[in-house]
Amino acid sequence: MFVNRKKIHVEWGDCDPAGIVYFPRYFAYFDNCTAALFAAAIMPKYDLLKLHNIAGFPLVDTRAKFFHPSRFGDVIEVESCVITWRNSSFDVRHRLYRGSVLAAECEETRVWAGRSSLDPEKIEARTVPDAVIAKMGGTRNSAERKAFAHRG
Amino acid sequence: MFVNRKKIHVEWGDCDPAGIVYFPRYFAYFDNCTAALFAAAIMPKYDLLKLHNIAGFPLVDTRAKFFHPSRFGDVIEVESCVITWRNSSFDVRHRLYRGSVLAAECEETRVWAGRSSLDPEKIEARTVPDAVIAKMGGTRNSAERKAFAHRG
Amino acid sequence: MFVNRKKIHVEWGDCDPAGIVYFPRYFAYFDNCTAALFAAAIMPKYDLLKLHNIAGFPLVDTRAKFFHPSRFGDVIEVESCVITWRNSSFDVRHRLYRGSVLAAECEETRVWAGRSSLDPEKIEARTVPDAVIAKMGGTRNSAERKAFAHRG
Amino acid sequence: MFVNRKKIHVEWGDCDPAGIVYFPRYFAYFDNCTAALFAAAIMPKYDLLKLHNIAGFPLVDTRAKFFHPSRFGDVIEVESCVITWRNSSFDVRHRLYRGSVLAAECEETRVWAGRSSLDPEKIEARTVPDAVIAKMGGTRNSAERKAFAHRG
Repeated sequence: MFVNRKKIHVEWGDCDPAGIVYFPRYFAYFDNCTAALFAAAIMPKYDLLKLHNIAGFPLVDTRAKFFHPSRFGDVIEVESCVITWRNSSFDVRHRLYRGSVLAAECEETRVWAGRSSLDPEKIEARTVPDAVIAKMGGTRNSAERKAFAHRG
Repeated sequence: MFVNRKKIHVEWGDCDPAGIVYFPRYFAYFDNCTAALFAAAIMPKYDLLKLHNIAGFPLVDTRAKFFHPSRFGDVIEVESCVITWRNSSFDVRHRLYRGSVLAAECEETRVWAGRSSLDPEKIEARTVPDAVIAKMGGTRNSAERKAFAHRG
Repeated sequence: MFVNRKKIHVEWGDCDPAGIVYFPRYFAYFDNCTAALFAAAIMPKYDLLKLHNIAGFPLVDTRAKFFHPSRFGDVIEVESCVITWRNSSFDVRHRLYRGSVLAAECEETRVWAGRSSLDPEKIEARTVPDAVIAKMGGTRNSAERKAFAHRG
Repeated sequence: MFVNRKKIHVEWGDCDPAGIVYFPRYFAYFDNCTAALFAAAIMPKYDLLKLHNIAGFPLVDTRAKFFHPSRFGDVIEVESCVITWRNSSFDVRHRLYRGSVLAAECEETRVWAGRSSLDPEKIEARTVPDAVIAKMGGTRNSAERKAFAHRG
């Protein structure tokens, strides 16, 4: 299983009036880490989307826990990997460290999604290519955990 | 139980290159809805923090599901309420509708948090005042679900 | 000249550790106000882009002055209008008020931009339709102020 | 004059439905570059604010030009320096390059600002310490360009 680590410098504008990271910014960090994971294992997201003719991998489910706040000036590090591959969706796990302390963790369920040929405004699930899963060092879990009604 | 509904106009800048809401922005929407819930039931967050001498109610745990994407120009509506009150934390539930369709839902666990008197850089849990719970039409569930190690 | 006023509620997450609006958020406010101006005078931006087959009206030049900070909980109001129309670009002026006090002002120069037929990844300037200018109560100033090299 | 260069990876979430950087994000980039400039020449912003007992250096005036759009996956580089020091304010200039092409430039006028001793909710201008200017390789221009009414 391919694991990527990404350093993030917490910026002034990432923090709120309490002086700690405004939590929606953590989800932007995690989104950037998912992109960095694919870039490190396969190719940059921009090229990946073009090669596979997909619109993105939108998030349909997420769970996050925040154990310790971070503040501007902190350098944190996020360890990311895909823990489950299904037919057209996958789960990414992020663990955010401040030094050696686990400060937050997050799981994202994402869909490999293309534009509908009938209506390009709509986004629909597609099968994740075998080559993508192989390059990420994963194996497909044949059972789709649930049907995603991500139809736009 | 006090329930608040807030309309949100999805803006161009809330959306990503796939043309749909960039998911960290949903968490900003939900954060704004939690503030609006307190404002509607009690008083604006700014005044509430000052009155109770707290630094905020940082999020320590969240779960969200996204069933249908939204795009810029959509007007969505979020229904928010506190579903559990514990000693120093509480759970907020948000349901996001696009028309009559449930498009996303989210639960947030938040801590009622003040600055430490020993070290004002640190944030620590405080007991949620009875008056706050009463004005929100809730009752306290005496068992703290878990110990939050939100110590900064 | 059509003038639009938009109320904005300053949110917790719009503010930085100094407790005041993080200035890039003002530019998001102004961008939202430009969209609201077109929506009020003509039609929602989403429909406008589709009708005229354009990709957006990207900003190429901006000047802003901030006289007084705002903080979370403030309700501010922005007055917006287009002050100059050229062949393929236009200038929007925003004045941001906190109560009766002018707290900030901003001018944006934007280009009416479509996707290149040769390379849809590129964005190129297009002539602003007469009907758009007329509905905004403006007149075209024939001299293009400068050549925009907004070619992607 | 101390000059700092900072590389920025344009992220998916920095871009809008036209697929290019949402312009308010450029101002966040520039704000991060100003912080990086002080960090490189003197010390991290967090420590700098504590040492000098200031609340920040809020922006009071900015001018920016965008010559070429950037899109997600681009790696851009920003060259930043302080071009003028006055009594309690200073001007930062940022030049943003995509490869060897100047894609944007920005000037920010910022105030060295502390909390009022009479009312800590108010922010007021302070004299920039000589040591700060010296470490940045600058000299003070004695004439204050204008009086900043940045009083909160």
